[in-house]
Amino acid sequence: MMGKGRLLGLSVGPGDAELITVKALRLLREAPVVAYFVAKAKASKGQGGNAFGVIEEYLRDDQLRLPLVYPVTTEKLAPPLSYEDVIADFYDTAAAQVAAHLDAGRDVAVICEGDALFYGSYMYLHDRLAERYATEVVPGVCSMLGAAAALGAPLVYRNQSLLVLSGVLSEEELTARLSGVEAAVVMKLGRNFDKVRRVLERLNLAERALYIERATMAEQRSLPLAEVDPMASPYFSLILVPGPRWQG
Amino acid sequence: MMGKGRLLGLSVGPGDAELITVKALRLLREAPVVAYFVAKAKASKGQGGNAFGVIEEYLRDDQLRLPLVYPVTTEKLAPPLSYEDVIADFYDTAAAQVAAHLDAGRDVAVICEGDALFYGSYMYLHDRLAERYATEVVPGVCSMLGAAAALGAPLVYRNQSLLVLSGVLSEEELTARLSGVEAAVVMKLGRNFDKVRRVLERLNLAERALYIERATMAEQRSLPLAEVDPMASPYFSLILVPGPRWQG
Repeated sequence: MMGKGRLLGLSVGPGDAELITVKALRLLREAPVVAYFVAKAKASKGQGGNAFGVIEEYLRDDQLRLPLVYPVTTEKLAPPLSYEDVIADFYDTAAAQVAAHLDAGRDVAVICEGDALFYGSYMYLHDRLAERYATEVVPGVCSMLGAAAALGAPLVYRNQSLLVLSGVLSEEELTARLSGVEAAVVMKLGRNFDKVRRVLERLNLAERALYIERATMAEQRSLPLAEVDPMASPYFSLILVPGPRWQG
Repeated sequence: MMGKGRLLGLSVGPGDAELITVKALRLLREAPVVAYFVAKAKASKGQGGNAFGVIEEYLRDDQLRLPLVYPVTTEKLAPPLSYEDVIADFYDTAAAQVAAHLDAGRDVAVICEGDALFYGSYMYLHDRLAERYATEVVPGVCSMLGAAAALGAPLVYRNQSLLVLSGVLSEEELTARLSGVEAAVVMKLGRNFDKVRRVLERLNLAERALYIERATMAEQRSLPLAEVDPMASPYFSLILVPGPRWQG
């Protein structure tokens, strides 16, 4: 791989710019090219994406910004279009944009909110490029641990199990998977909030559940589960069900 | 709480000193007292604990070191002694040691490997002190995400679920909980390794499983599951079962 640039998957943490690691910050500052995902609507207004907003203050003027602009779409498209195909096309294009810089010998830092390999959009570039280029991934603070710290809530004790799942799952699936869990985290609430709350109430997990929006960001907000407006729960919200406190 | 010190729960990450966050490093350097857990056998040789080893290079000479020395014990003690009682006594004593500094107006940084609220020993001080003193918890990179990055292995895609559990569970319990999972992490291997491997093989998860010891540390080592010597698996080892690669 002589002469080619390195692919760097840099986790930037849950939102607070200080929650990036020392290592990711060093590699970010050294990289000649900084790539980031951004929705088309934001990009057309000259804005960066979520991860970009976290680390923008750390960038130098001489670093090249490489926006990877994704189409705004929903998971329901009219046939013959499918969400999977549209997204796969987008990642193919993004991978080619990054590869062009790598082929020219420039390292590319792909930044990712939370942790890059934990539901991170970086993974889809990694799967396309890591076999062809020298690659380094720097882990980060994932959103659920940012939330636990913001709430001061110990998440999982000793030999307890933790289940992390997506609010997108059906009510039946959520009920089946959450039955009997000790500790749980439900990500991707948004318009799934009401369904998730019903399931937690039915399983008697609601009294232990903690809801938080935009944890560690300036606009962080936490409120009781019962008081959340199900129509107004943002993408950056999640529910923690901490494990029962261990006496030790 | 005028005049009292602040309790700081500082996550130091999975092992590589550079994987501490910028925020935890800043608060660590500002703290007059740095408390850390250390086993009696290590303390009597003048050594620090695991978290202390990670951040020792960052400390100044004028910062007070406060070792919280725990008894080395196993989970099986002859009655009337119980593991729970011995550990609870230890944490009561440690909390009193920390509280003495807080009462004297000194901030105390309690350092914790990985993330402080994710199976962290800091949680037991938090539960004893956070209601009485101003408290701030700084999240960190947990060991499983350090391992995923070290292995370059995307851990969980899109709407997949992730189950994190302890290898201490019984073979039956492990089998029941791991049946049908998409992605999983098994912590606390050590002498539980052989049992965990049998379960993963029986559930056809072994082919996807990745084993790693001391991820992100200088002595990091990864090897195929089948080649691991079950008698030599250290405490700092874990198994990742990444979710099936999503085509997107």
